[in-house]
Amino acid sequence: MPDLNEPTADDLSTLSAMVNGAVRSGDDAAPYLTEPRDVARGRAALVLRPGNTGEVAEIVNFCAARRIGVVPYGGGTGLVGGQVMADGPLPVVVSLERMNRIRDVIPEENALIAEAGVILSDIQAAAHDAGRLFPLSLASEGSCRIGGNLSTNAGGVQVLRYGNARDLCLGIEAVLPNGEILSGLKTLRKDNTGYDLRHLLLGAEGTLGILTAAVLKLFPIPQATVTAMLAVPGPSAATTLLHRLRDLLGDQITAFELIHGNGVEFVGRFHDVVDPLNGFPAWRVLAEVVGTDQEALQEQLETAFSSAFEDGLATDGVQALSDAQRQEMWKLRETIPEANRKVGAVSSHDISLPIKSLPEFIDEANDVISRIDSDLVTNCFGHLGDGNLHYNVFPPKGRRNQDYANRKMEVKTALHDLVNAYDGSVSAEHGIGRFKAADLVTYSDPAKVTAMRSIKAALDPAGIMNPGAVLV
Amino acid sequence: MPDLNEPTADDLSTLSAMVNGAVRSGDDAAPYLTEPRDVARGRAALVLRPGNTGEVAEIVNFCAARRIGVVPYGGGTGLVGGQVMADGPLPVVVSLERMNRIRDVIPEENALIAEAGVILSDIQAAAHDAGRLFPLSLASEGSCRIGGNLSTNAGGVQVLRYGNARDLCLGIEAVLPNGEILSGLKTLRKDNTGYDLRHLLLGAEGTLGILTAAVLKLFPIPQATVTAMLAVPGPSAATTLLHRLRDLLGDQITAFELIHGNGVEFVGRFHDVVDPLNGFPAWRVLAEVVGTDQEALQEQLETAFSSAFEDGLATDGVQALSDAQRQEMWKLRETIPEANRKVGAVSSHDISLPIKSLPEFIDEANDVISRIDSDLVTNCFGHLGDGNLHYNVFPPKGRRNQDYANRKMEVKTALHDLVNAYDGSVSAEHGIGRFKAADLVTYSDPAKVTAMRSIKAALDPAGIMNPGAVLV
Repeated sequence: MPDLNEPTADDLSTLSAMVNGAVRSGDDAAPYLTEPRDVARGRAALVLRPGNTGEVAEIVNFCAARRIGVVPYGGGTGLVGGQVMADGPLPVVVSLERMNRIRDVIPEENALIAEAGVILSDIQAAAHDAGRLFPLSLASEGSCRIGGNLSTNAGGVQVLRYGNARDLCLGIEAVLPNGEILSGLKTLRKDNTGYDLRHLLLGAEGTLGILTAAVLKLFPIPQATVTAMLAVPGPSAATTLLHRLRDLLGDQITAFELIHGNGVEFVGRFHDVVDPLNGFPAWRVLAEVVGTDQEALQEQLETAFSSAFEDGLATDGVQALSDAQRQEMWKLRETIPEANRKVGAVSSHDISLPIKSLPEFIDEANDVISRIDSDLVTNCFGHLGDGNLHYNVFPPKGRRNQDYANRKMEVKTALHDLVNAYDGSVSAEHGIGRFKAADLVTYSDPAKVTAMRSIKAALDPAGIMNPGAVLV
Repeated sequence: MPDLNEPTADDLSTLSAMVNGAVRSGDDAAPYLTEPRDVARGRAALVLRPGNTGEVAEIVNFCAARRIGVVPYGGGTGLVGGQVMADGPLPVVVSLERMNRIRDVIPEENALIAEAGVILSDIQAAAHDAGRLFPLSLASEGSCRIGGNLSTNAGGVQVLRYGNARDLCLGIEAVLPNGEILSGLKTLRKDNTGYDLRHLLLGAEGTLGILTAAVLKLFPIPQATVTAMLAVPGPSAATTLLHRLRDLLGDQITAFELIHGNGVEFVGRFHDVVDPLNGFPAWRVLAEVVGTDQEALQEQLETAFSSAFEDGLATDGVQALSDAQRQEMWKLRETIPEANRKVGAVSSHDISLPIKSLPEFIDEANDVISRIDSDLVTNCFGHLGDGNLHYNVFPPKGRRNQDYANRKMEVKTALHDLVNAYDGSVSAEHGIGRFKAADLVTYSDPAKVTAMRSIKAALDPAGIMNPGAVLV
């Protein structure tokens, strides 16, 4: 942790005068100091809500000169503690919520320029109104903000076809740790003028600067979409089914989600969500495919699914025949994270593996967990098409996660070690934040960590930007 | 330029002993000191051809300790002088040509692992043999090497659908300027563990390290492809046609190339290439579209083109009905750079613009050039779908470019100023190298250049990696 100062009373007055709506402390500041699973609490001397890029630069400039920590805050939905600083000298939280303007929608360039504080679903809606698709889609899209999505390189359910958040961004505007404004809001598809600072800041989780705006890529709205839910015998059958669909439909597959029955059961405990499948299958997949002709696509998939049934790759299946049915299927999927939170995990893991290793990994991971404690229940679900699993471990029904708190580190270490042995990643789409900063060092190539430290020291010599996140 | 040492006789002996096939000087070294347009000559104390990553690391380690410049060398096809160091203390050239092994092809992960010295067309062929597509495609694909393609973030003719070289790379192995090996050859689609050093090195043109291997993304081979060449009244009609095709076919369009008649005339002077169109139209486009059903796609395009003819957006057109015809169309397009070289440009420009501004830009640029010297002839062609033009200026027929050498700087400055005024880029896909290092400073956001310098100094404090390229 760098040697930072806590802001003095004078500093707080100066900083508060820079923006409208500064929040000193107390209840008003509380929402900025929590995170979704309530496993950490942040602290702050002040919450600032700048209204424009110039104000952000003024704040960072001042904090750099005074060596005061700055914690950027988007929608607060991050799951790795990147937005909550629990230790060290009190920082200033900079919330981008008032920078929530869509500056431009340019359908003929397939581009949209949004400020960092725009809520993801508002961007999706603005794109749709212009006859375009912004494909980034995740469970928290109604409250997460695009600056946070980009800073954490968010993933979600359409990565298979459209890529991660960084792949959907053509340019950024950001305030660097020295207070300078990086102005890179071009709509160009090709620009090879020097180092790609955009990609360096995307995924840096606010440790190399604060994103203030971005140019986002838009896509055509698919003319036809088919969504289907299929019961499958297990992850191995699901993987084979994915390969078959790919051979048939290539990159028309936009989503291929694996869901364990425990997730559906969790949802059922707390939510009134319809299950399109009968009999509570142990495993299911949710697949979405796009094309140009609705009927042809449905027929193609029916044929594919028929042969999958014959070959024992699926045992039951439903195609959504209306948008309402489609939304029902997705609602089941997207409610799992919320249900998980209500059940309360002993330990949660956002991991990725080579797709070919996924079935074997899941078997082995289940063995590992039950050797640690055979009471523990796993809910493994996620973006099979991207090799990305959310492998979460829960107490048995009727018990609380606190009862198993002493197992948390053991579970986490055993799973991450296993991921590492399979050439996987211990953070697929959520980032490092503060909760995984030690894992980064444990599981990363040492040459990478050394280079990261050099870059951080070069761009942020005082270490003011999101102290303690990513690199410790 | 950093304060570097020229290798001593002892250094040369030590370095030569590190690898097989060191080339001291003389004729054998000559091919490593030229560049395609012969506008600059490199100098080198030694050319080294390491056979593996360990040897590359040994070389860089030694050169870092002795402060000796290292110039990485791929296929030598770069057009901005990134591979030829003309000034300063004699460097060591490190050619990756002997690291030409495809380490693995993993169709079920849609991934291929290639060493930096593999020739691009060999990668395309290996992917094809595995039933997959590696979409990076450019005129020099028979001789350029993937390490160079990635280091310069090459573009080419399929960017519209598949992205630039950086978008096709999942992971890299590289030797950093401190001699450490960065090991990042994972096939994962999602990996949010820390700063994206991959994207930082891609496009850094060898100034932040030497790429030694990469994981490349593969795609399904399109089931149906239609290629067509259409005569169009001008860039404005071409742009409208592009938008129409996009509304109809979305991201099924893989290429949309604009070609001026002067380019076709240049090709005709030196090459025996068939022109599929009659009457030497002033402007034409070459479009390629993929889909799942050949006949349906052809029909769809015929309808689209018919309405384009009716609306005056095209005046003539041919669909390729065989692979031979398709290749003929592409040969015409891909021979233009070679013909340009034979004619000999006064000044060449690899630029990008917002697509909506392209027609206006071309008009204005033509005016600018003819005001400078009404004798000058322009050949403007390129990847209209990406907003990327190769806007090249030539002497009139019968004269040589040397006769107009005194116009070169004036032409270049006037065009780059105009590009800048239109929010474009003065290097779309070729990079900065040494020829555009001054332009980078002139036309870039100062905050970006400052940050680039900080990163370069942090990772390469002695300044040994490709000295004088990108940053001066």
